[in-house]
Amino acid sequence: MSVPTPLTVWPVPGIPEILPGTDLAAVLGQALDGTGGHGLAAEDGDVLVVTQKIVSKAEGRLVPIDDSDPEAKARLVTAESRRVLRRRADVLITETRHGFVCANSGVDLSNVERGTAALLPVDPDRSARRIRDGLRHRFGLELAVIVSDTFGRPWRQGVTDVAIGCAGISAVVDLRGTTDATGRELVATQVCVADEVAAAAELVMGKDRRLPAAIVRGVDPSWLRPGSVQKEVVRPPAEDLFR
Amino acid sequence: MSVPTPLTVWPVPGIPEILPGTDLAAVLGQALDGTGGHGLAAEDGDVLVVTQKIVSKAEGRLVPIDDSDPEAKARLVTAESRRVLRRRADVLITETRHGFVCANSGVDLSNVERGTAALLPVDPDRSARRIRDGLRHRFGLELAVIVSDTFGRPWRQGVTDVAIGCAGISAVVDLRGTTDATGRELVATQVCVADEVAAAAELVMGKDRRLPAAIVRGVDPSWLRPGSVQKEVVRPPAEDLFR
Repeated sequence: MSVPTPLTVWPVPGIPEILPGTDLAAVLGQALDGTGGHGLAAEDGDVLVVTQKIVSKAEGRLVPIDDSDPEAKARLVTAESRRVLRRRADVLITETRHGFVCANSGVDLSNVERGTAALLPVDPDRSARRIRDGLRHRFGLELAVIVSDTFGRPWRQGVTDVAIGCAGISAVVDLRGTTDATGRELVATQVCVADEVAAAAELVMGKDRRLPAAIVRGVDPSWLRPGSVQKEVVRPPAEDLFR
Repeated sequence: MSVPTPLTVWPVPGIPEILPGTDLAAVLGQALDGTGGHGLAAEDGDVLVVTQKIVSKAEGRLVPIDDSDPEAKARLVTAESRRVLRRRADVLITETRHGFVCANSGVDLSNVERGTAALLPVDPDRSARRIRDGLRHRFGLELAVIVSDTFGRPWRQGVTDVAIGCAGISAVVDLRGTTDATGRELVATQVCVADEVAAAAELVMGKDRRLPAAIVRGVDPSWLRPGSVQKEVVRPPAEDLFR
Protein backbone atom coordinates (compact mmCIF):
# COMPACT_ATOMS: atom_id res chain seq x y z
CA MET A 1 0.00 0.00 0.00
CA SER A 2 1.56 3.29 -1.08
CA VAL A 3 0.67 6.86 -0.21
CA PRO A 4 -2.70 7.52 -1.82
CA THR A 5 -2.83 9.95 -4.73
CA PRO A 6 -3.66 13.39 -3.38
CA LEU A 7 -5.66 16.24 -4.79
CA THR A 8 -3.38 19.27 -5.00
CA VAL A 9 -4.46 22.89 -5.39
CA TRP A 10 -2.12 25.75 -6.23
CA PRO A 11 -2.92 29.43 -6.66
CA VAL A 12 -1.66 30.76 -9.99
CA PRO A 13 0.77 33.62 -9.39
CA GLY A 14 1.81 36.22 -11.88
CA ILE A 15 -1.55 37.13 -13.38
CA PRO A 16 -1.47 40.83 -14.27
CA GLU A 17 -4.38 43.27 -14.01
CA ILE A 18 -7.10 42.15 -16.41
CA LEU A 19 -8.75 44.79 -18.59
CA PRO A 20 -11.60 44.70 -21.09
CA GLY A 21 -10.27 42.91 -24.14
CA THR A 22 -7.43 41.16 -22.32
CA ASP A 23 -6.88 37.77 -23.94
CA LEU A 24 -7.43 35.59 -20.89
CA ALA A 25 -6.25 32.36 -22.48
CA ALA A 26 -2.99 34.07 -23.42
CA VAL A 27 -2.48 35.49 -19.93
CA LEU A 28 -3.34 32.21 -18.23
CA GLY A 29 -1.29 30.16 -20.66
CA GLN A 30 1.77 32.32 -20.01
CA ALA A 31 1.23 31.97 -16.25
CA LEU A 32 0.94 28.21 -16.55
CA ASP A 33 3.47 27.14 -19.16
CA GLY A 34 6.28 26.79 -16.63
CA THR A 35 8.23 29.82 -17.81
CA GLY A 36 6.69 32.25 -15.34
CA GLY A 37 9.56 32.04 -12.88
CA HIS A 38 7.32 30.67 -10.15
CA GLY A 39 7.82 27.11 -11.30
CA LEU A 40 4.16 26.18 -11.48
CA ALA A 41 3.37 24.42 -14.76
CA ALA A 42 -0.04 23.03 -15.63
CA GLU A 43 -0.31 19.43 -16.81
CA ASP A 44 -2.85 17.75 -19.04
CA GLY A 45 -5.77 16.62 -16.89
CA ASP A 46 -5.51 19.53 -14.45
CA VAL A 47 -8.55 21.67 -13.74
CA LEU A 48 -8.02 25.42 -14.05
CA VAL A 49 -10.39 27.43 -11.85
CA VAL A 50 -10.80 31.06 -12.89
CA THR A 51 -12.81 33.56 -10.88
CA GLN A 52 -15.78 35.28 -12.46
CA LYS A 53 -14.23 38.65 -11.75
CA ILE A 54 -11.41 38.39 -14.26
CA VAL A 55 -13.63 36.65 -16.82
CA SER A 56 -16.16 39.48 -16.58
CA LYS A 57 -13.41 42.09 -16.85
CA ALA A 58 -11.79 40.45 -19.87
CA GLU A 59 -15.18 40.15 -21.55
CA GLY A 60 -15.92 43.80 -20.89
CA ARG A 61 -18.87 43.04 -18.62
CA LEU A 62 -18.36 46.32 -16.77
CA VAL A 63 -20.93 49.08 -16.48
CA PRO A 64 -20.72 52.54 -14.94
CA ILE A 65 -22.58 52.99 -11.68
CA ASP A 66 -23.12 56.11 -9.58
CA ASP A 67 -21.61 55.18 -6.21
CA SER A 68 -23.34 58.16 -4.57
CA ASP A 69 -26.83 57.00 -5.58
CA PRO A 70 -28.03 54.36 -3.09
CA GLU A 71 -30.69 53.17 -5.53
CA ALA A 72 -28.34 52.75 -8.48
CA LYS A 73 -27.19 49.31 -7.46
CA ALA A 74 -30.73 48.05 -6.78
CA ARG A 75 -31.81 49.23 -10.24
CA LEU A 76 -28.87 47.51 -11.88
CA VAL A 77 -29.45 44.31 -9.88
CA THR A 78 -33.10 44.24 -10.88
CA ALA A 79 -32.22 44.86 -14.52
CA GLU A 80 -29.81 41.92 -14.41
CA SER A 81 -32.43 39.57 -12.93
CA ARG A 82 -35.20 37.42 -14.32
CA ARG A 83 -37.01 37.87 -11.04
CA VAL A 84 -36.47 39.06 -7.51
CA LEU A 85 -37.09 36.31 -4.96
CA ARG A 86 -36.45 38.17 -1.68
CA ARG A 87 -35.48 41.64 -0.54
CA ARG A 88 -33.92 42.72 2.71
CA ALA A 89 -32.14 45.95 3.52
CA ASP A 90 -29.19 46.17 1.15
CA VAL A 91 -29.53 42.80 -0.52
CA LEU A 92 -31.80 41.40 -3.21
CA ILE A 93 -31.89 37.65 -3.75
CA THR A 94 -32.55 37.25 -7.44
CA GLU A 95 -32.76 34.67 -10.16
CA THR A 96 -30.38 35.67 -12.93
CA ARG A 97 -31.02 35.12 -16.63
CA HIS A 98 -28.81 32.04 -16.37
CA GLY A 99 -31.06 30.66 -13.65
CA PHE A 100 -28.59 31.19 -10.80
CA VAL A 101 -30.15 32.24 -7.52
CA CYS A 102 -27.75 34.55 -5.72
CA ALA A 103 -27.38 37.89 -3.99
CA ASN A 104 -27.67 40.98 -6.18
CA SER A 105 -27.69 39.08 -9.49
CA GLY A 106 -23.95 38.57 -9.06
CA VAL A 107 -23.35 42.30 -9.62
CA ASP A 108 -20.09 43.14 -7.88
CA LEU A 109 -18.48 46.38 -6.83
CA SER A 110 -15.36 44.92 -5.19
CA ASN A 111 -12.07 44.55 -7.02
CA VAL A 112 -13.29 46.82 -9.81
CA GLU A 113 -12.68 50.53 -10.19
CA ARG A 114 -14.89 52.94 -8.29
CA GLY A 115 -17.85 54.01 -10.38
CA THR A 116 -17.86 50.63 -12.09
CA ALA A 117 -19.76 47.40 -11.48
CA ALA A 118 -18.91 43.96 -12.85
CA LEU A 119 -21.75 41.84 -14.23
CA LEU A 120 -21.73 38.07 -14.61
CA PRO A 121 -20.54 36.71 -17.98
CA VAL A 122 -23.39 36.31 -20.45
CA ASP A 123 -22.69 32.59 -20.85
CA PRO A 124 -20.15 31.30 -18.31
CA ASP A 125 -20.01 27.82 -19.86
CA ARG A 126 -19.00 29.47 -23.12
CA SER A 127 -16.44 31.59 -21.26
CA ALA A 128 -14.93 28.40 -19.86
CA ARG A 129 -14.91 26.76 -23.30
CA ARG A 130 -13.12 29.74 -24.83
CA ILE A 131 -10.38 29.62 -22.23
CA ARG A 132 -10.06 25.86 -22.61
CA ASP A 133 -9.90 26.08 -26.38
CA GLY A 134 -7.35 28.89 -26.26
CA LEU A 135 -5.09 26.95 -23.89
CA ARG A 136 -5.32 23.85 -26.07
CA HIS A 137 -4.71 25.51 -29.41
CA ARG A 138 -2.03 27.97 -28.42
CA PHE A 139 -0.23 26.27 -25.54
CA GLY A 140 -0.96 22.61 -26.19
CA LEU A 141 -2.49 22.32 -22.72
CA GLU A 142 -5.46 20.01 -22.29
CA LEU A 143 -7.13 21.48 -19.19
CA ALA A 144 -10.64 21.41 -17.83
CA VAL A 145 -11.82 24.91 -16.92
CA ILE A 146 -14.23 26.07 -14.23
CA VAL A 147 -15.41 29.66 -13.86
CA SER A 148 -16.16 30.27 -10.18
CA ASP A 149 -18.09 32.86 -8.22
CA THR A 150 -18.85 33.46 -4.56
CA PHE A 151 -22.44 32.79 -3.51
CA GLY A 152 -24.28 32.84 -0.22
CA ARG A 153 -26.64 30.09 0.84
CA PRO A 154 -29.94 29.97 2.67
CA TRP A 155 -29.79 28.30 6.10
CA ARG A 156 -26.01 28.46 6.32
CA GLN A 157 -23.93 31.51 7.13
CA GLY A 158 -20.78 32.35 5.24
CA VAL A 159 -20.24 32.34 1.50
CA THR A 160 -18.54 29.66 -0.55
CA ASP A 161 -17.25 29.54 -4.10
CA VAL A 162 -19.29 27.61 -6.63
CA ALA A 163 -19.02 26.91 -10.34
CA ILE A 164 -20.97 29.13 -12.73
CA GLY A 165 -19.45 27.68 -15.88
CA CYS A 166 -17.31 24.74 -16.91
CA ALA A 167 -15.71 23.04 -19.90
CA GLY A 168 -13.96 19.72 -20.19
CA ILE A 169 -15.31 18.46 -16.85
CA SER A 170 -18.70 17.14 -15.79
CA ALA A 171 -20.36 19.53 -13.39
CA VAL A 172 -22.36 16.75 -11.75
CA VAL A 173 -21.11 13.18 -11.47
CA ASP A 174 -23.85 10.60 -11.24
CA LEU A 175 -23.06 7.75 -8.90
CA ARG A 176 -26.61 6.45 -8.88
CA GLY A 177 -26.82 2.75 -9.44
CA THR A 178 -23.38 2.01 -8.11
CA THR A 179 -23.42 0.19 -4.81
CA ASP A 180 -22.16 1.32 -1.45
CA ALA A 181 -19.63 -0.62 0.57
CA THR A 182 -22.34 -2.92 1.94
CA GLY A 183 -23.61 -3.79 -1.53
CA ARG A 184 -26.82 -1.80 -1.10
CA GLU A 185 -27.66 0.35 -4.09
CA LEU A 186 -27.04 4.07 -3.69
CA VAL A 187 -30.18 5.82 -4.77
CA ALA A 188 -29.35 9.48 -5.14
CA THR A 189 -25.73 10.42 -5.13
CA GLN A 190 -25.28 12.95 -7.87
CA VAL A 191 -22.30 14.91 -6.65
CA CYS A 192 -21.71 18.44 -7.90
CA VAL A 193 -17.97 18.05 -8.27
CA ALA A 194 -17.68 21.38 -10.12
CA ASP A 195 -18.85 23.21 -7.01
CA GLU A 196 -16.52 21.17 -4.82
CA VAL A 197 -13.54 21.94 -7.07
CA ALA A 198 -14.46 25.65 -7.03
CA ALA A 199 -14.65 25.55 -3.23
CA ALA A 200 -11.27 23.85 -2.97
CA ALA A 201 -9.75 26.51 -5.24
CA GLU A 202 -11.14 29.32 -3.10
CA LEU A 203 -9.15 28.03 -0.13
CA VAL A 204 -5.89 29.03 -1.84
CA MET A 205 -7.08 32.17 -3.58
CA GLY A 206 -8.36 34.22 -0.66
CA LYS A 207 -10.37 37.36 -1.18
CA ASP A 208 -7.92 40.19 -0.79
CA ARG A 209 -5.00 39.07 -2.89
CA ARG A 210 -4.48 39.15 -6.61
CA LEU A 211 -4.88 35.42 -7.07
CA PRO A 212 -7.83 35.00 -9.39
CA ALA A 213 -7.02 31.49 -10.62
CA ALA A 214 -5.97 28.11 -9.27
CA ILE A 215 -4.82 24.77 -10.62
CA VAL A 216 -6.42 21.62 -9.21
CA ARG A 217 -4.56 18.39 -9.92
CA GLY A 218 -5.75 14.88 -9.18
CA VAL A 219 -9.46 14.81 -9.91
CA ASP A 220 -10.89 11.51 -11.10
CA PRO A 221 -10.00 11.29 -14.82
CA SER A 222 -13.47 9.88 -15.58
CA TRP A 223 -14.94 13.32 -14.76
CA LEU A 224 -13.00 14.93 -17.60
CA ARG A 225 -15.60 14.95 -20.36
CA PRO A 226 -17.86 17.61 -21.82
CA GLY A 227 -19.82 19.38 -19.08
CA SER A 228 -22.06 22.38 -18.47
CA VAL A 229 -23.06 24.15 -15.28
CA GLN A 230 -26.08 25.56 -17.07
CA LYS A 231 -27.41 22.15 -18.07
CA GLU A 232 -26.29 20.06 -15.10
CA VAL A 233 -26.46 22.36 -12.08
CA VAL A 234 -29.15 24.97 -12.62
CA ARG A 235 -32.33 23.45 -11.21
CA PRO A 236 -35.44 24.23 -13.26
CA PRO A 237 -37.71 26.52 -11.20
CA ALA A 238 -40.60 24.04 -11.56
CA GLU A 239 -38.55 21.37 -9.80
CA ASP A 240 -37.39 23.65 -7.01
CA LEU A 241 -39.01 23.54 -3.57
CA PHE A 242 -37.74 26.93 -2.38
CA ARG A 243 -38.54 29.50 -5.02
CA MET B 1 9.23 33.77 -6.93
CA SER B 2 8.94 30.11 -5.97
CA VAL B 3 6.15 27.62 -6.49
CA PRO B 4 3.27 28.78 -4.32
CA THR B 5 2.33 26.65 -1.34
CA PRO B 6 -0.41 24.24 -2.35
CA LEU B 7 -3.35 22.84 -0.50
CA THR B 8 -3.05 19.05 -0.52
CA VAL B 9 -5.81 16.56 0.20
CA TRP B 10 -5.26 12.85 0.80
CA PRO B 11 -7.81 10.15 1.51
CA VAL B 12 -6.93 8.21 4.65
CA PRO B 13 -6.54 4.52 3.81
CA GLY B 14 -6.64 1.65 6.22
CA ILE B 15 -9.69 2.61 8.29
CA PRO B 16 -11.44 -0.62 9.33
CA GLU B 17 -15.18 -1.13 9.66
CA ILE B 18 -16.48 1.17 12.41
CA LEU B 19 -18.92 -0.31 14.94
CA PRO B 20 -20.83 1.18 17.85
CA GLY B 21 -18.30 1.84 20.56
CA THR B 22 -15.28 1.90 18.24
CA ASP B 23 -12.76 4.40 19.58
CA LEU B 24 -12.54 6.68 16.55
CA ALA B 25 -9.60 8.72 17.78
CA ALA B 26 -7.64 5.49 18.27
CA VAL B 27 -8.53 4.18 14.82
CA LEU B 28 -7.77 7.50 13.11
CA GLY B 29 -4.58 8.02 15.08
CA GLN B 30 -3.30 4.59 14.06
CA ALA B 31 -4.17 5.33 10.43
CA LEU B 32 -2.36 8.68 10.60
CA ASP B 33 0.75 8.11 12.69
CA GLY B 34 2.85 7.02 9.75
CA THR B 35 3.06 3.37 10.74
CA GLY B 36 0.11 2.21 8.68
CA GLY B 37 2.17 1.01 5.76
CA HIS B 38 0.60 3.49 3.36
CA GLY B 39 3.10 6.18 4.24
CA LEU B 40 0.58 8.91 4.98
CA ALA B 41 1.39 10.67 8.24
CA ALA B 42 -0.57 13.62 9.59
CA GLU B 43 1.32 16.74 10.63
CA ASP B 44 0.45 19.42 13.15
CA GLY B 45 -1.73 22.03 11.45
CA ASP B 46 -3.45 19.54 9.15
CA VAL B 47 -7.23 19.37 9.03
CA LEU B 48 -8.73 15.91 9.43
CA VAL B 49 -12.12 15.57 7.75
CA VAL B 50 -14.24 12.66 9.00
CA THR B 51 -17.56 11.72 7.46
CA GLN B 52 -20.68 11.77 9.58
CA LYS B 53 -21.31 8.14 8.79
CA ILE B 54 -18.41 6.73 10.81
CA VAL B 55 -18.91 9.26 13.60
CA SER B 56 -22.57 8.23 13.90
CA LYS B 57 -21.62 4.56 13.84
CA ALA B 58 -18.93 4.94 16.49
CA GLU B 59 -21.32 6.92 18.68
CA GLY B 60 -23.98 4.25 18.31
CA ARG B 61 -26.41 6.55 16.50
CA LEU B 62 -28.01 3.58 14.76
CA VAL B 63 -31.66 2.64 15.02
CA PRO B 64 -33.56 -0.32 13.62
CA ILE B 65 -35.88 0.43 10.72
CA ASP B 66 -38.31 -1.82 8.89
CA ASP B 67 -37.11 -1.70 5.28
CA SER B 68 -40.40 -3.22 4.09
CA ASP B 69 -42.54 -0.43 5.58
CA PRO B 70 -42.53 2.55 3.18
CA GLU B 71 -43.71 4.86 5.96
CA ALA B 72 -41.05 3.85 8.47
CA LYS B 73 -38.42 6.20 7.12
CA ALA B 74 -40.81 9.15 6.98
CA ARG B 75 -41.78 8.59 10.61
CA LEU B 76 -38.15 8.42 11.68
CA VAL B 77 -37.25 11.52 9.65
CA THR B 78 -40.10 13.47 11.21
CA ALA B 79 -39.12 12.32 14.69
CA GLU B 80 -35.56 13.51 14.06
CA SER B 81 -36.73 16.97 12.92
CA ARG B 82 -37.67 20.20 14.62
CA ARG B 83 -39.94 20.92 11.69
CA VAL B 84 -40.68 19.78 8.20
CA LEU B 85 -40.16 22.57 5.64
CA ARG B 86 -41.13 20.81 2.42
CA ARG B 87 -42.33 17.41 1.29
CA ARG B 88 -42.13 15.81 -2.11
CA ALA B 89 -42.49 12.19 -3.06
CA ASP B 90 -39.80 10.31 -1.20
CA VAL B 91 -38.01 13.27 0.36
CA LEU B 92 -38.74 15.52 3.32
CA ILE B 93 -36.73 18.71 3.68
CA THR B 94 -36.47 19.24 7.40
CA GLU B 95 -34.85 21.42 10.01
CA THR B 96 -32.96 19.16 12.41
CA ARG B 97 -32.60 19.79 16.13
CA HIS B 98 -29.17 21.24 15.38
CA GLY B 99 -30.74 23.74 13.00
CA PHE B 100 -29.42 22.10 9.82
CA VAL B 101 -31.80 22.20 6.88
CA CYS B 102 -31.34 19.05 4.83
CA ALA B 103 -33.08 16.11 3.22
CA ASN B 104 -34.62 13.54 5.55
CA SER B 105 -33.08 15.01 8.73
CA GLY B 106 -29.76 13.49 7.69
CA VAL B 107 -31.16 9.99 8.32
CA ASP B 108 -29.19 7.64 6.11
CA LEU B 109 -29.72 4.09 4.99
CA SER B 110 -26.63 3.74 2.80
CA ASN B 111 -23.40 2.21 4.05
CA VAL B 112 -25.16 0.81 7.10
CA GLU B 113 -26.57 -2.68 7.54
CA ARG B 114 -30.00 -3.46 6.14
CA GLY B 115 -32.70 -2.86 8.70
CA THR B 116 -30.63 -0.10 10.27
CA ALA B 117 -30.59 3.69 9.82
CA ALA B 118 -27.84 6.07 10.87
CA LEU B 119 -28.85 9.31 12.60
CA LEU B 120 -26.76 12.47 12.80
CA PRO B 121 -24.51 12.82 15.86
CA VAL B 122 -26.27 14.56 18.74
CA ASP B 123 -23.64 17.33 18.84
CA PRO B 124 -21.25 17.18 15.86
CA ASP B 125 -19.03 19.98 17.21
CA ARG B 126 -18.55 17.89 20.35
CA SER B 127 -17.85 14.83 18.19
CA ALA B 128 -15.12 16.79 16.41
CA ARG B 129 -13.67 18.00 19.73
CA ARG B 130 -13.52 14.46 21.09
CA ILE B 131 -11.61 13.21 18.06
CA ARG B 132 -9.28 16.21 18.22
CA ASP B 133 -8.65 15.77 21.94
CA GLY B 134 -8.04 12.04 21.52
CA LEU B 135 -5.51 12.59 18.74
CA ARG B 136 -3.70 15.23 20.77
CA HIS B 137 -3.53 13.34 24.04
CA ARG B 138 -2.77 9.89 22.75
CA PHE B 139 -0.85 10.50 19.54
CA GLY B 140 0.60 13.97 20.12
CA LEU B 141 -1.08 15.17 16.93
CA GLU B 142 -2.39 18.75 16.88
CA LEU B 143 -5.06 18.53 14.17
CA ALA B 144 -8.16 20.50 13.39
CA VAL B 145 -11.15 18.22 12.85
CA ILE B 146 -14.21 18.65 10.65
CA VAL B 147 -17.16 16.26 10.63
CA SER B 148 -18.70 16.32 7.16
CA ASP B 149 -21.99 15.25 5.66
CA THR B 150 -23.52 15.31 2.20
CA PHE B 151 -26.32 17.83 1.70
CA GLY B 152 -28.43 18.92 -1.24
CA ARG B 153 -29.09 22.55 -2.02
CA PRO B 154 -32.05 24.49 -3.29
CA TRP B 155 -31.60 25.97 -6.78
CA ARG B 156 -28.57 23.83 -7.62
CA GLN B 157 -28.60 20.18 -8.60
CA GLY B 158 -26.12 17.72 -7.21
CA VAL B 159 -25.06 17.27 -3.61
CA THR B 160 -21.89 18.55 -1.98
CA ASP B 161 -20.19 17.79 1.31
CA VAL B 162 -20.46 20.41 4.04
CA ALA B 163 -19.26 20.67 7.62
CA ILE B 164 -21.69 19.71 10.38
CA GLY B 165 -19.16 19.98 13.20
CA CYS B 166 -15.64 21.28 13.73
CA ALA B 167 -12.92 21.73 16.33
CA GLY B 168 -9.64 23.61 16.16
CA ILE B 169 -10.64 25.54 13.04
CA SER B 170 -12.92 28.50 12.48
CA ALA B 171 -15.97 27.47 10.50
CA VAL B 172 -16.40 30.96 9.07
CA VAL B 173 -13.52 33.35 8.44
CA ASP B 174 -14.49 36.99 8.55
CA LEU B 175 -12.71 39.08 5.95
CA ARG B 176 -14.98 42.09 6.44
CA GLY B 177 -13.10 45.29 6.84
CA THR B 178 -10.05 44.13 4.98
CA THR B 179 -9.57 45.86 1.68
CA ASP B 180 -9.67 44.40 -1.78
CA ALA B 181 -6.87 44.78 -4.29
CA THR B 182 -8.09 48.25 -5.31
CA GLY B 183 -8.15 49.51 -1.71
CA ARG B 184 -11.93 49.56 -1.53
CA GLU B 185 -13.34 48.02 1.63
CA LEU B 186 -14.86 44.58 1.28
CA VAL B 187 -18.26 44.70 2.90
CA ALA B 188 -19.44 41.14 3.30
CA THR B 189 -16.90 38.43 2.79
CA GLN B 190 -17.45 35.93 5.54
CA VAL B 191 -16.20 32.74 3.96
CA CYS B 192 -17.39 29.37 5.25
CA VAL B 193 -14.01 27.70 5.00
CA ALA B 194 -15.24 24.65 6.92
CA ASP B 195 -17.69 23.86 4.14
CA GLU B 196 -15.01 24.46 1.51
CA VAL B 197 -12.59 22.11 3.27
CA ALA B 198 -15.33 19.47 3.57
CA ALA B 199 -16.04 19.85 -0.16
CA ALA B 200 -12.36 19.50 -1.04
CA ALA B 201 -12.17 16.33 1.08
CA GLU B 202 -15.15 14.79 -0.68
CA LEU B 203 -13.29 14.96 -3.98
CA VAL B 204 -10.84 12.30 -2.77
CA MET B 205 -13.24 10.21 -0.71
CA GLY B 206 -15.85 9.28 -3.30
CA LYS B 207 -19.10 7.66 -2.30
CA ASP B 208 -18.64 3.99 -2.96
CA ARG B 209 -15.27 3.30 -1.41
CA ARG B 210 -14.27 2.77 2.19
CA LEU B 211 -12.55 6.10 2.51
CA PRO B 212 -14.42 7.93 5.25
CA ALA B 213 -11.68 10.41 6.17
CA ALA B 214 -9.23 12.78 4.52
CA ILE B 215 -6.27 14.91 5.50
CA VAL B 216 -6.15 18.50 4.23
CA ARG B 217 -2.76 20.21 4.47
CA GLY B 218 -2.01 23.84 3.78
CA VAL B 219 -4.96 25.83 5.10
CA ASP B 220 -4.21 29.34 6.33
CA PRO B 221 -2.74 28.87 9.85
CA SER B 222 -4.76 31.87 11.11
CA TRP B 223 -7.93 29.80 10.68
CA LEU B 224 -6.72 27.26 13.24
CA ARG B 225 -8.46 28.49 16.37
CA PRO B 226 -11.53 27.37 18.30
CA GLY B 227 -14.53 27.06 16.01
CA SER B 228 -18.07 25.75 15.89
CA VAL B 229 -20.36 24.92 13.00
CA GLN B 230 -23.34 25.24 15.33
CA LYS B 231 -22.46 28.80 16.36
CA GLU B 232 -20.91 30.10 13.15
CA VAL B 233 -22.75 28.40 10.31
CA VAL B 234 -26.30 27.58 11.41
CA ARG B 235 -28.36 30.62 10.44
CA PRO B 236 -31.03 31.51 13.00
CA PRO B 237 -34.46 30.89 11.45
CA ALA B 238 -35.48 34.49 12.16
CA GLU B 239 -32.63 35.74 9.95
CA ASP B 240 -33.34 33.34 7.14
CA LEU B 241 -35.17 34.45 4.02
CA PHE B 242 -36.12 30.98 2.77
CA ARG B 243 -37.73 29.10 5.63
